[in-house]
Amino acid sequence: MASDHFSCSIGEEFVSEIESGLESSEIHGADLRFHGVVRKTEDGREISGIRYSFYENMALRELEAIGEAMGEAYPDHLATVYHRVGEVAAGDASILIRVQTAHSAAAFEISREYLKRIKETVPIWKEPVFV
Amino acid sequence: MASDHFSCSIGEEFVSEIESGLESSEIHGADLRFHGVVRKTEDGREISGIRYSFYENMALRELEAIGEAMGEAYPDHLATVYHRVGEVAAGDASILIRVQTAHSAAAFEISREYLKRIKETVPIWKEPVFV
Repeated sequence: MASDHFSCSIGEEFVSEIESGLESSEIHGADLRFHGVVRKTEDGREISGIRYSFYENMALRELEAIGEAMGEAYPDHLATVYHRVGEVAAGDASILIRVQTAHSAAAFEISREYLKRIKETVPIWKEPVFV
Repeated sequence: MASDHFSCSIGEEFVSEIESGLESSEIHGADLRFHGVVRKTEDGREISGIRYSFYENMALRELEAIGEAMGEAYPDHLATVYHRVGEVAAGDASILIRVQTAHSAAAFEISREYLKRIKETVPIWKEPVFV
């Protein structure tokens, strides 16, 4: 889904594939990309990865709602959010939050806020895959 | 140059080339990449890009000093800093700051701090290329 400043998607592609398709901008001096990476331990036990599952429409609708609210809270930014689902191996990224702003300070603030809101409300479930 | 947690370089390669060679980690849940992008205007005038020049040894020494100080201030992070030099076109990135931490909050804080210190002290000069 996409609005003027925001696009989001959920799928099984690697974050690097999504990132390679991102467009650059000549008016945004800051381009910040947060990758949330699966770590190899969960509650002290070793895991090979995390299996993510979701209700597609609900999750996309919630991401879109976050994008709209963020557009009102922070005009003049662009953002792309991608959440990977299925089994994501330890060391691989499960989420990409890309934020573009004219100047750097806003990019950090906006990116943190996207991450916070996504963690709080988007219905995507995690199941560790133990070794 | 590289220490245990920090590496830095300066060159004419695109930031995307440097980024494609970055290694992932299974113990750092946050991987944040800041791209500083050349904008198409400078003081209200259109530019085609910015020409960056530097004293190689001084600039690398200063980056390395920042990396060391940051390692003391913020243990348990990894960082890679790359500054592109020569003529960088509007829309292209001139700097990459990549920070990995166990959790996300620290990555944002540390990345901002690298950017601040680099802007303050690293002797790299900018000359706009007017259209």
